[in-house]
Amino acid sequence: MTNESAVLLPPAHVIREIVQRALAEDIGYGDLTTAATIPADAVAEGMIIARAAGVIAGLSVAAAVFAELSGDICFEPLVIDGASLEPGATIARISGPARSILSGERVALNFLQQLSGVATATRLIVEQLSGTRARLLDTRKTVPCLRVLQRYAVRVGGGTSHRFNLFDGVLIKENHIAAAGGIEPALARALAAVGPFTPVEIEVETLDQLGRAIDAGAHMVLLDNMTPEEMRQAVELANGRVLLEASGDITLETARAIAETGVDFLSSGALTHSAKALNLSLRLT
Amino acid sequence: MTNESAVLLPPAHVIREIVQRALAEDIGYGDLTTAATIPADAVAEGMIIARAAGVIAGLSVAAAVFAELSGDICFEPLVIDGASLEPGATIARISGPARSILSGERVALNFLQQLSGVATATRLIVEQLSGTRARLLDTRKTVPCLRVLQRYAVRVGGGTSHRFNLFDGVLIKENHIAAAGGIEPALARALAAVGPFTPVEIEVETLDQLGRAIDAGAHMVLLDNMTPEEMRQAVELANGRVLLEASGDITLETARAIAETGVDFLSSGALTHSAKALNLSLRLT
Amino acid sequence: MTNESAVLLPPAHVIREIVQRALAEDIGYGDLTTAATIPADAVAEGMIIARAAGVIAGLSVAAAVFAELSGDICFEPLVIDGASLEPGATIARISGPARSILSGERVALNFLQQLSGVATATRLIVEQLSGTRARLLDTRKTVPCLRVLQRYAVRVGGGTSHRFNLFDGVLIKENHIAAAGGIEPALARALAAVGPFTPVEIEVETLDQLGRAIDAGAHMVLLDNMTPEEMRQAVELANGRVLLEASGDITLETARAIAETGVDFLSSGALTHSAKALNLSLRLT
Amino acid sequence: MTNESAVLLPPAHVIREIVQRALAEDIGYGDLTTAATIPADAVAEGMIIARAAGVIAGLSVAAAVFAELSGDICFEPLVIDGASLEPGATIARISGPARSILSGERVALNFLQQLSGVATATRLIVEQLSGTRARLLDTRKTVPCLRVLQRYAVRVGGGTSHRFNLFDGVLIKENHIAAAGGIEPALARALAAVGPFTPVEIEVETLDQLGRAIDAGAHMVLLDNMTPEEMRQAVELANGRVLLEASGDITLETARAIAETGVDFLSSGALTHSAKALNLSLRLT
Amino acid sequence: MTNESAVLLPPAHVIREIVQRALAEDIGYGDLTTAATIPADAVAEGMIIARAAGVIAGLSVAAAVFAELSGDICFEPLVIDGASLEPGATIARISGPARSILSGERVALNFLQQLSGVATATRLIVEQLSGTRARLLDTRKTVPCLRVLQRYAVRVGGGTSHRFNLFDGVLIKENHIAAAGGIEPALARALAAVGPFTPVEIEVETLDQLGRAIDAGAHMVLLDNMTPEEMRQAVELANGRVLLEASGDITLETARAIAETGVDFLSSGALTHSAKALNLSLRLT
Amino acid sequence: MTNESAVLLPPAHVIREIVQRALAEDIGYGDLTTAATIPADAVAEGMIIARAAGVIAGLSVAAAVFAELSGDICFEPLVIDGASLEPGATIARISGPARSILSGERVALNFLQQLSGVATATRLIVEQLSGTRARLLDTRKTVPCLRVLQRYAVRVGGGTSHRFNLFDGVLIKENHIAAAGGIEPALARALAAVGPFTPVEIEVETLDQLGRAIDAGAHMVLLDNMTPEEMRQAVELANGRVLLEASGDITLETARAIAETGVDFLSSGALTHSAKALNLSLRLT
Repeated sequence: MTNESAVLLPPAHVIREIVQRALAEDIGYGDLTTAATIPADAVAEGMIIARAAGVIAGLSVAAAVFAELSGDICFEPLVIDGASLEPGATIARISGPARSILSGERVALNFLQQLSGVATATRLIVEQLSGTRARLLDTRKTVPCLRVLQRYAVRVGGGTSHRFNLFDGVLIKENHIAAAGGIEPALARALAAVGPFTPVEIEVETLDQLGRAIDAGAHMVLLDNMTPEEMRQAVELANGRVLLEASGDITLETARAIAETGVDFLSSGALTHSAKALNLSLRLT
Repeated sequence: MTNESAVLLPPAHVIREIVQRALAEDIGYGDLTTAATIPADAVAEGMIIARAAGVIAGLSVAAAVFAELSGDICFEPLVIDGASLEPGATIARISGPARSILSGERVALNFLQQLSGVATATRLIVEQLSGTRARLLDTRKTVPCLRVLQRYAVRVGGGTSHRFNLFDGVLIKENHIAAAGGIEPALARALAAVGPFTPVEIEVETLDQLGRAIDAGAHMVLLDNMTPEEMRQAVELANGRVLLEASGDITLETARAIAETGVDFLSSGALTHSAKALNLSLRLT
Repeated sequence: MTNESAVLLPPAHVIREIVQRALAEDIGYGDLTTAATIPADAVAEGMIIARAAGVIAGLSVAAAVFAELSGDICFEPLVIDGASLEPGATIARISGPARSILSGERVALNFLQQLSGVATATRLIVEQLSGTRARLLDTRKTVPCLRVLQRYAVRVGGGTSHRFNLFDGVLIKENHIAAAGGIEPALARALAAVGPFTPVEIEVETLDQLGRAIDAGAHMVLLDNMTPEEMRQAVELANGRVLLEASGDITLETARAIAETGVDFLSSGALTHSAKALNLSLRLT
Repeated sequence: MTNESAVLLPPAHVIREIVQRALAEDIGYGDLTTAATIPADAVAEGMIIARAAGVIAGLSVAAAVFAELSGDICFEPLVIDGASLEPGATIARISGPARSILSGERVALNFLQQLSGVATATRLIVEQLSGTRARLLDTRKTVPCLRVLQRYAVRVGGGTSHRFNLFDGVLIKENHIAAAGGIEPALARALAAVGPFTPVEIEVETLDQLGRAIDAGAHMVLLDNMTPEEMRQAVELANGRVLLEASGDITLETARAIAETGVDFLSSGALTHSAKALNLSLRLT
Repeated sequence: MTNESAVLLPPAHVIREIVQRALAEDIGYGDLTTAATIPADAVAEGMIIARAAGVIAGLSVAAAVFAELSGDICFEPLVIDGASLEPGATIARISGPARSILSGERVALNFLQQLSGVATATRLIVEQLSGTRARLLDTRKTVPCLRVLQRYAVRVGGGTSHRFNLFDGVLIKENHIAAAGGIEPALARALAAVGPFTPVEIEVETLDQLGRAIDAGAHMVLLDNMTPEEMRQAVELANGRVLLEASGDITLETARAIAETGVDFLSSGALTHSAKALNLSLRLT
Repeated sequence: MTNESAVLLPPAHVIREIVQRALAEDIGYGDLTTAATIPADAVAEGMIIARAAGVIAGLSVAAAVFAELSGDICFEPLVIDGASLEPGATIARISGPARSILSGERVALNFLQQLSGVATATRLIVEQLSGTRARLLDTRKTVPCLRVLQRYAVRVGGGTSHRFNLFDGVLIKENHIAAAGGIEPALARALAAVGPFTPVEIEVETLDQLGRAIDAGAHMVLLDNMTPEEMRQAVELANGRVLLEASGDITLETARAIAETGVDFLSSGALTHSAKALNLSLRLT
């Protein structure tokens, strides 16, 4: 189980803003069904239950959903983000005004299912890396407008954060190299433009390019679609002078072999762009 | 191929607002790499290419991404939303300032891959329904903050829109029935509360409940987790007096058999909460 | 008196957002007069009083105004929305910090007077419909940016909500019919485009058109500027197969006769675009 | 006819923001009817027509509505704000994409009808003041969130703007006087607190209070619910040392007599809180 | 020491909005350092200390910063805005969750240092004016987006507010005069356009222009870059018929001599556009 | 002169958003003076002139101000950001609608003067560092809500960007060290928590602490208030294993001596929190 305080939770106002947008989207000008059928003073109590095995993530987002709808709802998590759950496990207890609980149910579950899906997919690959030096990185291939939460879910699953966005670090790709006139001028321009808090990474396809990137001062190098054998040679060539990131077709099946080449990082877009929602439900009692 | 004008595209300002949020998330205070390596006056040209088979959706969202970044980018779709693509198919041509194209590439692809994933999943099931009266409905189980676009992608794939949100129609579920004191009082209160533009649907688990729901004036009934045989009996019992929606475990494998029971609708949350991104790339030329 | 729980109140965050905008508009960068003349620790107490007869609506909006200005104000309604008031009736008691009460007074009254004006106008016509099957509908002819509150006030007055906006239902008017090539193709296209949660209404001017609209599958028909006699014939022709809405020159004088034709609905724009504010005042004690 | 350049039109971005809010409210996630029935490439042309006599106001707001929906709409006013219209008069010509024109029609008319209603009510009273020194002032009794536009409509109708909001000037009322310990201390504190760009007005009920207010340095005095005879004496007493504003029950019937007392201003809340919408329509050709 | 209630503090929601923007800017998606090094349940206590002499301003802004981050922080000012501090003076005591205190420290100090810098610069000049009739005005030369707070700081320092912005009063400058065709037509047009709550000021460079401005009805005149001797003559010429504002090169060295000419106001842009931050620090105990 | 393409300009939408806020603040509901005195069709032409020596920064911000007000204004910079100007130098030519130019003048100058003040202060210190390895860093001590622009101005002046905010890098200060239980555990926790794109810096006060920080894996060390002699020893001790940042009392007088100790960076808060606005004016011709 992930130690809660080792994972940076997004600030409360960031979570609140996303939650407000999701609630506005789902509630519109009011929950017609609940207003018509549930007495204003009815109270309810229920449990969030896992209906499949996986890693839970997003409990504080779910809590924020209900807090937004009523100050009288008590949402009590029974596990912490990062817990591995079996089907049937109880995740949280909720009690309070029935109207608010029912109006918030779908949005809370939508967040929890999506984020737990990301954490689960991450955990499965992270487990493959055990005993190697490799860590699993996320990417910018996230669902639009949910990056900060998906990133959090990756960390909950045991993954590590790559640069958050285009301002958060330099990653020179093929098109940048071509436009700048080669690896050396591209790196020179990048290193001159940024301050000490901005690492500079570059993407290479061959060992020769890797060598030139190291000589030109890159801090980290992305090995694009290399075979494990090529990666092994890259690790040898780099010899600790730069960090190495393996990218391209990282799956549950391929991860272990790639990690064993000695690279520092594997990165996977599928963790965030194609995660399968974890099946959860809210059962009133 | 879906006829473009038969599908409601969300209004331009709605698309623009989501696009602006996604760009703000990905660009932050500026694209460091591009500013450092690409000359301000460089131009580029490229193609968006399918790397897997599927149904494309979201071309006007991608266009909006680039339009937001520069008035000088020309984004020319070569197919229309709803087209079925083979791997290698060319989807759109883009040309203009190299910095803006590179800064927008990831966000444009993130939208296109996600929405095309939804459209592709929808189309696969819709094809199973061919020759039956059944239509495929989406649900409120969408990725938070992307509902309006995911709904559009479902329509592009050939699906039909269920109520958009809690204000857009009444759907009385088990907890509402319990709180209202039964199927009859729940329906009576709902029918009295709404105007003629708000259909009233109710969820039932047995044929007996279905009969009572019809007698109490429901416009539509959701058959929750019934077997195909039970659904067939429900269709017979309803005899056209209400619309019937089948829900629960709708997959590529189960859809045809369910449709053949004669229900009016199948609804599936997985279309939107667990769609696998369609693999696309932008190749500069 | 309307039963409070039968009327959908807009969600708290929707009310809060409108209230914040109205306060920002009226307070600007601060209430100069109050800051200069009222000690920071002064407290006050007062009553909101009706100065004319009418139906009150918007008490929770007024409460939200004061709540936004100070957590220490106690706003206690003495009647509920929908109550019929005589001149001089006491509506609510308020106590707390004098500065906040005085700074919020005008905005709270502006909301209450406007919404009570709408509810009063509605109630007067609704009373004319008593004993007929007809219900009174609102329209999209609302004061810009206040629709959700004006709609609520109509319901408080005993009216029924028509489609909320252009996304909330189909209403095919003369120009749409002309562009689509006639009543039949217009209805066919609309019925194919929407899902089961979107009723389709069409506007007609003659009985012949009404017959064709029914045959083409319309769910509801708007009778545009027909005489009562024509409406009576329309009711006979429809014979319960569609809902009928009478529109055009619905006033206190004409409403009864129209309702007696047997139509299902009367709709009136004047309820919301021309309501006379109900005269109210806040008297400090 | 009002000289256009003598009336301050709100800034374009202020108009645009209100227009965007009103369109979002009315269009939601898309105009279903138009998308289903009007071909995407259809064009249309039409006229905005007066169906009752009155003063037009808000043409640039209507123009902004259509501009927001499509860059291809041509909106051409045929009169200017402030024009007095007879029933049947043509106000503006519009042409362009049929979908956008039909989607914007209702919002454009809602603005024009509301603002023209305010301008018309203002003009009627202003005409009563002709030949006197009195000018007609608006108040803070405006429809929430529309103040800036309603104020503009009052100016178009020939009225004069009072302080815009609580930050825009000091107006000491009965409760402020009581809390401050009397007219003199209230005025002293206010005059000390503000700079040279903030006039200080005070409300009085008697001639004695008026005299004290003048001695204490008020710049302007509001005569609250005085009879015309009392106002005449107030004018005599003030003798030009302060501006005098008459308030309370200003109607078409009472305005002239009040103006003839010699007061500088009459102020009326009904201009903005209870204006009857001017009947206008958009007729496609 | 300024009497707190004599100075208009901006409304709480205005302060909160600026504070939220500043925190979003500084915290981004989370405080990495604090999350990694400070236990979630750690508490801390500290003092805000002056490290230079000056006038404090902005304590409620600093309080709002911490309130935004945690409801459990206790922020207790030990002086009030306007207090003159010696180096080493204790300004406020703070206690609560260590993470929130450390995350908010920099933003709180950035506000306090900037606003106290403005108040200090103001106080120094105001002291020079003692015994004269002159008051010190601020200008529109403020740091973008901070005007309302800088204006407050000027008042805290003993200064007086000029018009807040372009809507808040008329100030006719050289270019306006030229475009309008001279002093007289410019003033005539302005006086006709505005209501009684909008004073009209005009800028002049010679005594002749001053005389004409007075005759044309100006309420206030800005003497642009006149010598003290010219100002003295202007005061004599005006003889109390208008307010006179001296502008241009108002410094600690020149202020007294200018004030002694008898002008009503001196205005200085440097108070707000070039204030030196007051050196403060937060020391945990 | 700084090479324009080597400096990252904030994205257009970021600039536009700040500009819109500043214009809303200064224009409010309209420019009364301009509307009253300048004909709607008047055109004007002018120059922005330096009235003091300095480094210009912010030309694209000024351009954005005028672009926001009118599409018909032509704003033509005659120098580029980073140019060193003598008093009297012409900076930009502007022409177009007179009303828009006059309404935008103050805001455009407020931005230009503030940012040029920052760039000028930066350049002066950067010149002192010439010939040493040291670079000048900015800090988080910025004017609230203007950080992104102030940072840009620092780069224009030749400075280098430190971490943008609390999410953009780790900087462990005294309080973090204390809470974590010492330099080693603090660094260990930080290094474990972050990914490869987040450098970790720590603040030390002694050489002993420096040695421990290096051994514990810090990437960069902030030398807090050390004397030049101590810094020299720190440089020797570090011997290139970490980057060293000197902080505390960096002024025009002290900078050179500090740079000559061999540290990698000097950082200065005064660049941004206390910059003196550069004197500029707009002269119409």
